[in-house]
Amino acid sequence: MKTQTFSKGLLTEVLDGSTRAIARLISCVETNNADYSEILANIYHKAGQAHVVGITGVPGSGKSTLLRSLVQTIRGGRRTVGVIAIDPSSPFSGGAILGDRIRMLQVSEDPGVFIRSMATRGALGGLARATLDVVDILDAAGFDVIIIETVGVGQDEVDVVQAAHSTVVVSAPGLGDDIQAIKAGILEIADIHVVNKSDRPDANKTITDLTQMLATNLAGSSENNWTTPILPVSASNDHGVADLLKALEEHRAFLQSSGEIVGRRRRIAMYRILKTVRGFMQESMAMSQNAIMQDLLDRVLAREIGPRDAALQILASVNENNLK
Amino acid sequence: MKTQTFSKGLLTEVLDGSTRAIARLISCVETNNADYSEILANIYHKAGQAHVVGITGVPGSGKSTLLRSLVQTIRGGRRTVGVIAIDPSSPFSGGAILGDRIRMLQVSEDPGVFIRSMATRGALGGLARATLDVVDILDAAGFDVIIIETVGVGQDEVDVVQAAHSTVVVSAPGLGDDIQAIKAGILEIADIHVVNKSDRPDANKTITDLTQMLATNLAGSSENNWTTPILPVSASNDHGVADLLKALEEHRAFLQSSGEIVGRRRRIAMYRILKTVRGFMQESMAMSQNAIMQDLLDRVLAREIGPRDAALQILASVNENNLK
Repeated sequence: MKTQTFSKGLLTEVLDGSTRAIARLISCVETNNADYSEILANIYHKAGQAHVVGITGVPGSGKSTLLRSLVQTIRGGRRTVGVIAIDPSSPFSGGAILGDRIRMLQVSEDPGVFIRSMATRGALGGLARATLDVVDILDAAGFDVIIIETVGVGQDEVDVVQAAHSTVVVSAPGLGDDIQAIKAGILEIADIHVVNKSDRPDANKTITDLTQMLATNLAGSSENNWTTPILPVSASNDHGVADLLKALEEHRAFLQSSGEIVGRRRRIAMYRILKTVRGFMQESMAMSQNAIMQDLLDRVLAREIGPRDAALQILASVNENNLK
Repeated sequence: MKTQTFSKGLLTEVLDGSTRAIARLISCVETNNADYSEILANIYHKAGQAHVVGITGVPGSGKSTLLRSLVQTIRGGRRTVGVIAIDPSSPFSGGAILGDRIRMLQVSEDPGVFIRSMATRGALGGLARATLDVVDILDAAGFDVIIIETVGVGQDEVDVVQAAHSTVVVSAPGLGDDIQAIKAGILEIADIHVVNKSDRPDANKTITDLTQMLATNLAGSSENNWTTPILPVSASNDHGVADLLKALEEHRAFLQSSGEIVGRRRRIAMYRILKTVRGFMQESMAMSQNAIMQDLLDRVLAREIGPRDAALQILASVNENNLK
């Protein structure tokens, strides 16, 4: 009864844009507190207005600096912006490193900017579920632009940044071989390419390489008459960041005018539902740390049955157990 | 009938260590071909002898060079070794970059070495399922040591490298901030730390930092009287690699003598079963691209219901549908 009253107040406060209320609700999302599922359903109902932007890039591409500059440029145009930074570090590191990045981002005490980090391994029920719930919260709270920032490595990180309307991939000149391999894995998800550190002499080669790669990739995101731009940016002195913002606006307008926004929303919703299903499955299995599970585990360890057979039997028991 | 005969031949050939048969069965694993589930159950039954080693490290730590040197050192001791290299690049890049790394690794035509790359995004039914099936295949085929190598970023990549008996985390001096953040996320999974490029003047600082971090981390893997060593290595000229191999042997002996191998096998089997359950769920959902799914998706898009409610209804329908 008390929770209910509290929740109603919290919903109103979030919709009014109270920073404190937003932060509190996000904490509930992170701990996957089921008491708040009703309030989140209400939030979801109200969301859907913001421009959701994904920014990803390889380590060393200067994403953080770009993000800070982009946030300032958006604010220069009077629009409000929420940032969800996916922290690649673990609970073990105490988020100290990301903390520094976040502080660097803080545009003094501007209430038109809300920044929150999410730990990759911290979010109960899955990174994607939590991140997209937070997108809804910031959206319903009235932020004009919402940025999801991830490092461009790892399936979850790459997937979640695609759950945006417009995805920006940040490259930079002069990175090593490992990084090139990682980069190759995220190039195709870009609606907009940024080549950061463009003041460096080797930046032109990076731009040329990227141009050639896009030219040969006919299956790229340009299929619907959107030509993926490659923007030289030097974020450390804000060069080119206004062009990036312009390209984001153009991409948003393109999504609307071409009708592609419909397909994209559909893809995002599908992704989100599937990730939520997966989260539920995981919870069910965690709850069924029971006799059946232990027995199957013992038999797998004795190599009597394989993991595949064990998995089939667990699915059968989960079904019977607790899913209505 | 034909498949059955073929499969029986294939199983025998794999158990005999035929490189061609191993490669063919791995391809079946990658495409998640259900026709081979019986043969894989047989393989699982026979496996369990090899020492499974996970090697991970941040981009730029020189993992590939270390791996090549380690493989040569293991071969120098007459033992056979299988390597599963998890490719962080996507199908889009055609695996060209990893191809180069693999070529670099090839120890001429030595039949005592088997190297296979797995694409992070390529494996149907999940990276973990495929990787651990391949571990079984190489194990049953008689390889003494099996190495799983991943870049140390991304939940899947970090998880799968922990599905080993002994996990090595590779660091190197002089890496950037992003890399430091990533590194922080994998330090705690190490049974053995390697500081590569130890010939560099700043390597001592890396070793000191790591030593201090381990000293303050009482929750580390040293809980069962295993003191996680920090080994300076210069893989490019093979310095320290013999020490790494020695540490791996010591860790294996420790797992046996302390009985910790039991808990570790249990954890790996549990992880594997859960990942397999998840793969099945995903297949079920992919199959149910049906009226129910489309209807729920439409309602979510109209913001009538939230993703949470949709997920609950999908679970209910999947249960009724196709799981025995």
